[in-house]
Amino acid sequence: MPTKKPVIGLLGGGQLGRMLCQAAGPLGIQVAVLDTEDCPAKQANHNDLHVTGSFKDPEKIKLLATRCDVLTVEIEHVDTEILEEIATRGVEMPTPDGKYKMLKKVPCHPSWKTIRMIQDKYQQKEYFARNGIPVADQMAIESGKGRSDSLDEAAWKYGFPFMLKGSKGSYDGRGNFKVNGPEDLKNVTEQMGDQPLYAEKWVPFEMELSVMVVRTEDDRGNLKYVHPYPVVETIHEDSICTKVLYPPRNVPEEVKKRAQTVACDVIASLWGRGVFAVEMFLLHDGQILVNEVAPRPHNSGHFTIEAVPQMSQYKAQLYSILDRLPEKSVNLTARVPSAIMLNILGGAQKESHDKLVELAEREYDVWTDVYVHLYGKESKPGRKIGHITATGQGSVERLAEMMSPLIKTMDEIRAERIGSKLVHTPTAHVKVAPLVAITMGSDSDLPSLAAGMKILDEFHVPYEVRITSAHRTPHHMMKFAAEMAKSTCKVIIAAAGGAAHLPGMLASEVHIPVIGIPIKASVLDGVDSLHSIVQMPRGIPCATVGIGNSTNAALLAVRILGAAYPEYAERMKQYQENMKTEVLAKDDRIQSVGWESYLKDMQKK
Amino acid sequence: MPTKKPVIGLLGGGQLGRMLCQAAGPLGIQVAVLDTEDCPAKQANHNDLHVTGSFKDPEKIKLLATRCDVLTVEIEHVDTEILEEIATRGVEMPTPDGKYKMLKKVPCHPSWKTIRMIQDKYQQKEYFARNGIPVADQMAIESGKGRSDSLDEAAWKYGFPFMLKGSKGSYDGRGNFKVNGPEDLKNVTEQMGDQPLYAEKWVPFEMELSVMVVRTEDDRGNLKYVHPYPVVETIHEDSICTKVLYPPRNVPEEVKKRAQTVACDVIASLWGRGVFAVEMFLLHDGQILVNEVAPRPHNSGHFTIEAVPQMSQYKAQLYSILDRLPEKSVNLTARVPSAIMLNILGGAQKESHDKLVELAEREYDVWTDVYVHLYGKESKPGRKIGHITATGQGSVERLAEMMSPLIKTMDEIRAERIGSKLVHTPTAHVKVAPLVAITMGSDSDLPSLAAGMKILDEFHVPYEVRITSAHRTPHHMMKFAAEMAKSTCKVIIAAAGGAAHLPGMLASEVHIPVIGIPIKASVLDGVDSLHSIVQMPRGIPCATVGIGNSTNAALLAVRILGAAYPEYAERMKQYQENMKTEVLAKDDRIQSVGWESYLKDMQKK
Repeated sequence: MPTKKPVIGLLGGGQLGRMLCQAAGPLGIQVAVLDTEDCPAKQANHNDLHVTGSFKDPEKIKLLATRCDVLTVEIEHVDTEILEEIATRGVEMPTPDGKYKMLKKVPCHPSWKTIRMIQDKYQQKEYFARNGIPVADQMAIESGKGRSDSLDEAAWKYGFPFMLKGSKGSYDGRGNFKVNGPEDLKNVTEQMGDQPLYAEKWVPFEMELSVMVVRTEDDRGNLKYVHPYPVVETIHEDSICTKVLYPPRNVPEEVKKRAQTVACDVIASLWGRGVFAVEMFLLHDGQILVNEVAPRPHNSGHFTIEAVPQMSQYKAQLYSILDRLPEKSVNLTARVPSAIMLNILGGAQKESHDKLVELAEREYDVWTDVYVHLYGKESKPGRKIGHITATGQGSVERLAEMMSPLIKTMDEIRAERIGSKLVHTPTAHVKVAPLVAITMGSDSDLPSLAAGMKILDEFHVPYEVRITSAHRTPHHMMKFAAEMAKSTCKVIIAAAGGAAHLPGMLASEVHIPVIGIPIKASVLDGVDSLHSIVQMPRGIPCATVGIGNSTNAALLAVRILGAAYPEYAERMKQYQENMKTEVLAKDDRIQSVGWESYLKDMQKK
Repeated sequence: MPTKKPVIGLLGGGQLGRMLCQAAGPLGIQVAVLDTEDCPAKQANHNDLHVTGSFKDPEKIKLLATRCDVLTVEIEHVDTEILEEIATRGVEMPTPDGKYKMLKKVPCHPSWKTIRMIQDKYQQKEYFARNGIPVADQMAIESGKGRSDSLDEAAWKYGFPFMLKGSKGSYDGRGNFKVNGPEDLKNVTEQMGDQPLYAEKWVPFEMELSVMVVRTEDDRGNLKYVHPYPVVETIHEDSICTKVLYPPRNVPEEVKKRAQTVACDVIASLWGRGVFAVEMFLLHDGQILVNEVAPRPHNSGHFTIEAVPQMSQYKAQLYSILDRLPEKSVNLTARVPSAIMLNILGGAQKESHDKLVELAEREYDVWTDVYVHLYGKESKPGRKIGHITATGQGSVERLAEMMSPLIKTMDEIRAERIGSKLVHTPTAHVKVAPLVAITMGSDSDLPSLAAGMKILDEFHVPYEVRITSAHRTPHHMMKFAAEMAKSTCKVIIAAAGGAAHLPGMLASEVHIPVIGIPIKASVLDGVDSLHSIVQMPRGIPCATVGIGNSTNAALLAVRILGAAYPEYAERMKQYQENMKTEVLAKDDRIQSVGWESYLKDMQKK
């Protein structure tokens, strides 16, 4: 079945396959799915290339191979023997004239070598360790008779607690067992059965991180490049990933960069093209250990659909597998400052999650966008049946605050499912993200600022008010500036008197406009403050208004916001129209009542 | 076939239906499509609710109705009699026990009344005119024997040229004929056949605009609300829309607002729920005339998929039809400052458009994201087989510049298709509209301003430079201010010395931020200018920078632009980073060479 455009053959049609197909449709890329007839992927991808059956069935895989140009997987638990055979020996198919049979080699991306190695989690990490990748200490546990001694050795080597993990076939944290003390050693076989096991040193991590990486190579297997997506924080409950936060909370830039470098190193050491997830532990001392790799799109990369829309993990998977992704065209920059992904897990009842979806369809504030992804799967308790991604224009902490009603509902559904009492996640009251920050060197400046605050209220501008002295609290001021540079704020208003350094120092720290209000101090009538604020050196501008004139500072802030939001530009026009009307009315009155009477009325007030 | 969740029945499965299904999938909304088996929509939406057949076949429509809870259309050329019957009388279907037949009423959204009225373009505009909507003058042309007299009447009434249009069944500008003079009147029947016609006064428009509107009503037909998307500029070639620009180029805010108001008025006068396109002409005098309405998602709304991702026209169609869109949750704000949609029309060869798609997959700059949408249709010359949307973080003019390689390729494909010589469309080389205006009271201020101009060049900010003295040319200055208030300019920089009135007077006339640069005059060292500029009365702010410091004025302008365009915010961060690096390098040097040698080097320069 030769088609002009290359066809991707996909083993497995679950949610990852579904989202891959959803990305492929608009790009005109054809996908042939091997899975059951009603699987999530096929609902979104209807063509005559499908193979109905199990992605574990070698004959079906061969049939799929005859219909495509490259094979890929949405799950690593596949038969790599058959993938190797198809890639190296070929699959038998009729010649175009139908008279003979020929062998067609169909490559697999990522390579069957990568998949095979990753299937054994113990071997995977041994391999990484040999390649200089930081991983937790581990040792293989013997099977059968040797197991007991082997467990004792692990206990002796790592102390308690330590982890026991199944080497094969486990995902979503299944097959992990924490050995808290000698008494747990007796229950190992009961808990874990006879499967191949390995022991891992207990890693008291601060946070779990994940980085998706795009890898391409040429047809001879020479690496072309690896590129990382932004790092995310992953949160697991009941051993299942439930939340992903971009960016990770309170992680220094240096650590994030290092996580990306480690992730790229890991993936560079593998074989084949595609996207890969690298899950990592961030320890308290800042050390990063690689936990495991998934050779495919991953739950921790769902956020890229909306946060990196120009190249989501699914688009990247399609393009990289087809080797249609030149290095110059790989732009994995997030297009929003923050994003949070929440998995929708099936609840106690089939419709338990409906309220979560309904809640997601409601607006939170004008800055928060919430996207629902349902997978077309029947709901079963604990099953991943969809996810919700929210994107924000401010910090991830603020976004988490905005999403707290959703998180609370997730908690309720989980509590009902696992039959536990509800532990409430603290639900912060939803605040509109500020557009203007007003700050002053001392609270004695507050009276002068009140008029400006009233103007912002009048124009419906959300703002926050802070006290940050340049001289008494220089570090606090710097911290405030760093916060502002990353916040939703578009303008800072800063007031100071005397040797007025606050506005200029803030301007040095942020990239947004700073409006300075000189405050009249005890001497010099405010001229000292004015000159201290307005005469900034070349390179760092400070927009200065008249002495004590917070009204004009606020009005200037509104004019600046008007550049980004037409609603403020319109309100400003209306304000100016009203000023004109007022003055004209006064002119009318002075003409009609005469200046003496007008003056008398003024003096009465 | 009762399903728990409501099912939408869709007449027609072309590209609009396809994109509707692509939006429905992740939201868990089920769509039953009536169209041929291999239509674009079914490729992306595989379920057992489909009805294979023609959406013009009443029996198939009835079958579709038995499978869904609400009917909708992707094209207005449908049989409204049958839709009326199904909505008011009902469609026969077996009772759940299969023993009897019952009548099930299935509403159609938008209402069959709306669709019926819109099908006749002449009646449509007559209706709008009766409702106070501005439309071009028109008259019906009689058929048969009366046609000739009727045409003469139109020529007498409107003069030449005037337009002849088919009332029914036309779209994409088909069925339009421009009558340039008496000689064309002879060819009318040859060109237009016997179809019902109407004549329309020639409207020499400046630009075509379009506004998508969301409309909902309760089940008794009471309007709940209408909400507009942002206005776009549409460009037609060969009577087919080829490009859509958001925002429209050089259109004042006031006009855009008026276009949205007119569009909402039009749609409020109709019946049913859904999204609607209102196509309009913007005349040279600023007048807006409604051209026609499409009661469905529309080509001019494709840009919303990426530019209004939280509520694309397809999501809005799904949610509004199901009445799941509470007013508070309708946020139709664009999430990017600019977007351009280009239709991919089939070229002379089946694969003519491949190069366009390839080009779209290449990166242009880090700010431009390009999205390909192919419809899964066979390519035929001139057929809409896909579209490309680009989003930018700067002005639409800049984005058009970035996309010029794509636009050039579109032009080449078109030239080959229509067998003409290549004529570049004007969008390929548009002038970039200024974002900043720099003005001065006298050309003697120019030397002080040069440094600021260089900064704007460095930051790639488009600007214009003017001379407008407050005292020597007060009227010219006022005219300039009025111009600026309506232009694309977001910031004015004004320099003046002595009794420096220019910045303040401009600030009084415009609603955008004015940055004042005090220029040092012959006496008082510039303090006179500084005080004249900074000490504005309450109500009219002027952002003042240091004396003669045009560098800071320009940098402040860039910071202000950063509020609207992330690209400038990013450049500002980079600029500050570079400043830091420079100073640190100097510090390194002074430490390594010693201050004496450092000073000597400085004195040499």
